[in-house]
Amino acid sequence: MADKKLVESITSMDSDFAQWYTDVVKKAELIDYTSVKGCMVIKPAGYALWENIQKNLDAMFKENGVENVYLPMFIPESLLQKEKDHVEGFAPEVAWVTHGGLTELQERLCVRPTSETLFCDFYKNDIHSYRDLPRVYNQWCSVVRWEKETRPFLRSREFLWQEGHTAHATAAEAEERTIQMLNVYARFCEEVLAVPVIKGKKTDKEKFAGAESTYTIEALMHDGKALQSGTSHNFGDGFARAFGIQFADKDNTLKHVHQTSWGMSTRIIGAIIMVHGDDSGLVLPPRIAPTQVMIIPIQQKKEGVLDKAYALRDRLKGSLRVKVDDSDKSPGWKFSEQEMRGIPLRVEVGPKDIEAGRCVICRRDTREKVEAAFDELEEKLQEVLDKMQKEMLERAREHRDAHTYTAASMDEFEKIFNEKAGFVKAMWCGEQACEDTIKEKLSVTSRCMPFEQEQIADTCVCCGRPAKKMVYWGRAY
Amino acid sequence: MADKKLVESITSMDSDFAQWYTDVVKKAELIDYTSVKGCMVIKPAGYALWENIQKNLDAMFKENGVENVYLPMFIPESLLQKEKDHVEGFAPEVAWVTHGGLTELQERLCVRPTSETLFCDFYKNDIHSYRDLPRVYNQWCSVVRWEKETRPFLRSREFLWQEGHTAHATAAEAEERTIQMLNVYARFCEEVLAVPVIKGKKTDKEKFAGAESTYTIEALMHDGKALQSGTSHNFGDGFARAFGIQFADKDNTLKHVHQTSWGMSTRIIGAIIMVHGDDSGLVLPPRIAPTQVMIIPIQQKKEGVLDKAYALRDRLKGSLRVKVDDSDKSPGWKFSEQEMRGIPLRVEVGPKDIEAGRCVICRRDTREKVEAAFDELEEKLQEVLDKMQKEMLERAREHRDAHTYTAASMDEFEKIFNEKAGFVKAMWCGEQACEDTIKEKLSVTSRCMPFEQEQIADTCVCCGRPAKKMVYWGRAY
Repeated sequence: MADKKLVESITSMDSDFAQWYTDVVKKAELIDYTSVKGCMVIKPAGYALWENIQKNLDAMFKENGVENVYLPMFIPESLLQKEKDHVEGFAPEVAWVTHGGLTELQERLCVRPTSETLFCDFYKNDIHSYRDLPRVYNQWCSVVRWEKETRPFLRSREFLWQEGHTAHATAAEAEERTIQMLNVYARFCEEVLAVPVIKGKKTDKEKFAGAESTYTIEALMHDGKALQSGTSHNFGDGFARAFGIQFADKDNTLKHVHQTSWGMSTRIIGAIIMVHGDDSGLVLPPRIAPTQVMIIPIQQKKEGVLDKAYALRDRLKGSLRVKVDDSDKSPGWKFSEQEMRGIPLRVEVGPKDIEAGRCVICRRDTREKVEAAFDELEEKLQEVLDKMQKEMLERAREHRDAHTYTAASMDEFEKIFNEKAGFVKAMWCGEQACEDTIKEKLSVTSRCMPFEQEQIADTCVCCGRPAKKMVYWGRAY
Repeated sequence: MADKKLVESITSMDSDFAQWYTDVVKKAELIDYTSVKGCMVIKPAGYALWENIQKNLDAMFKENGVENVYLPMFIPESLLQKEKDHVEGFAPEVAWVTHGGLTELQERLCVRPTSETLFCDFYKNDIHSYRDLPRVYNQWCSVVRWEKETRPFLRSREFLWQEGHTAHATAAEAEERTIQMLNVYARFCEEVLAVPVIKGKKTDKEKFAGAESTYTIEALMHDGKALQSGTSHNFGDGFARAFGIQFADKDNTLKHVHQTSWGMSTRIIGAIIMVHGDDSGLVLPPRIAPTQVMIIPIQQKKEGVLDKAYALRDRLKGSLRVKVDDSDKSPGWKFSEQEMRGIPLRVEVGPKDIEAGRCVICRRDTREKVEAAFDELEEKLQEVLDKMQKEMLERAREHRDAHTYTAASMDEFEKIFNEKAGFVKAMWCGEQACEDTIKEKLSVTSRCMPFEQEQIADTCVCCGRPAKKMVYWGRAY
């Protein structure tokens, strides 16, 4: 039995989801707060998650022809101002460097909130001919946005992310790349993080500052709120015109490039926590868990117990990420810690198990226990991990579907958002006025116009005029 | 034959080493300059090198019990000021953030030049008991130092690095960790980068701001100048006292922790370039080269040539990092590019080779050519790569040893530095006044007091008083 003390130290999800979240990120030792307002320390357990995210996502990027680069963290004010919509979107929330050493700078530098302007400034000199295209570059870095209210992973003044920035010869190729990267994100979320997502396009109101169109993947958290989990933007040739990025095409005429950008951040760790977690703490999908199997010795002071635990670990570590908890805590406390940290499987090994030549495997998500003979342990663990990964995605999808509603009228729409939490599919006329009205009344935003459209009604849920699109609506993080 | 046009575009090493360096970093497409003064773009070829450095070094860290974390990039001014020597060392060269969005900050934040103060602020709350020790944390990040004169990789206002920060229960354990990490750096440089290094201790004048002792690895570049390639600092309990980092020891008394920090940066890429490069461009050691083998098709329009090149690549790519240059450039131009980029091996495959069932392998460093039958190509390539890695280290060591001199008197010392370039081993009394005199006269600094001491003379090379240590002296980057 797991020791209850550690578990009782966290608030239950149902009584206060926000507090549960804060308790879990602290007790699972993912982060710590700092003296730097709005910034956090990502502790080893949190950073190991990010390292696995990077490793998996970066491998997918490379399969898709992406090359990594690194650009400066500072943007001169004049550079930020070159694209009108972009500067309007970001200038109010950037940090400004005004002094270098003891000297006041001639021009202020902002700490990058995103790097479109820097990539444009670079591409302007880097791209000359159609032979130089496409450029499919990405960087892993930290960015700063001067947020007023912050929450670990979900919204902080500094966060880690990747930002891809590409340049293409044609509009069609840029659009293709925008969708291609959105699909990479969606596949990553579903296959690696077991987080199902809705793919779609943002409305003009919700699109990225300076983009022609923004695509998004939206996930539903356990509390029924939405989390934008990755975005991919098509800029057309807007930035290229503002920055003068031209290339000599095959027909020897000068043309502007077409650009895209796409990003995923440490925010996605918030999604892992809020989609899979439970009242005992984190539940990590096996593919992303830094430790997949924790071997917990029972009566570890008895001769042979620890030796057996180490021997099993050494045998398994070629194919699994496995550890032994050999600390001097009680087994019950170790169980609680393994559960709090979301380690997918626990293997209990005591004198009786050793005598019988088998042990117990316990799944973190369902608490299901399976017996396995020592000599078939590796195959059995792999089998249970695969099953767990698959079932976690299925369960998350079922939860999402069970919390996705349909509203044909404003009455229905309001009733759902007043009584329930989740996605609501409803028709929209295409006017921002209706989005504004809905946001003001219900604090609900349009999450996306999904690629998979349905004809729920003929008229806009808000104004009653003819509908153009079905939209997913929700309250969002 | 390699096309001469690309090669002729770079200055020769002997005529102007500094210009050769600048030409190579540009022509090998490692970096580009930016509108942000003193900051650079690290392009795909440069960043791929850094990724391989990270991958190899991080694996060595993890074997040594290091865990990765991430701390904020901003340091409140009051925090930076807590350790007196440290703030004096760094305050003159930091970038200051004074505004967040439209609001002036109540307290200025500096962009981290290094993170001792942040780690101390974190450890102060994170460490309570001897059970929490040691803490062996590291972060990969970028840091900012407002340098006046900058050079790609060697000195820039922003650079990438890793910084390890540890906390220990005893002074002995901290010293042990300081040396342990210095040894990791030395092993990494020699085994992976084929760069031989001198391990030693810095004099008080040259040690890190706030450190009790600083250890260093020093490498000799092709032009005879020294490059400090990695440092490891023991802080004793100085920072712990300034920040109040205490733990309850086993005997139940409160004690201050003992701390270390250690770092290696993108500067090391400068060492790779300047130790191994030649007049045709970069020469990359096989273990760190992003591409190890470039297959260059000859008469690629002839039927079967490209197919054979692709087939070889597909067969080899399981064990080697291999590419085919199938661009529409001439083979001569491709040879020059492969040489400029320092790709260790070139495989030439043309119709005659295909007919004969064998091809030519050409080594980048020696230009040596070896024939290999297609069916033994993989083993042959691996063999040549291993040999090349080993010989590059040997050659660099021979060069270093041939440019390491001994001086027993100031006359000898001056004569060597006026006529030659390299390390000079000479005795020192231990007084900073002599270091100052030597620096002023000859622009020469003490590089380190090597662990392997020799008794070259009895008296200080500068003042003639009794000598305490043998020191490596040199002109440094």
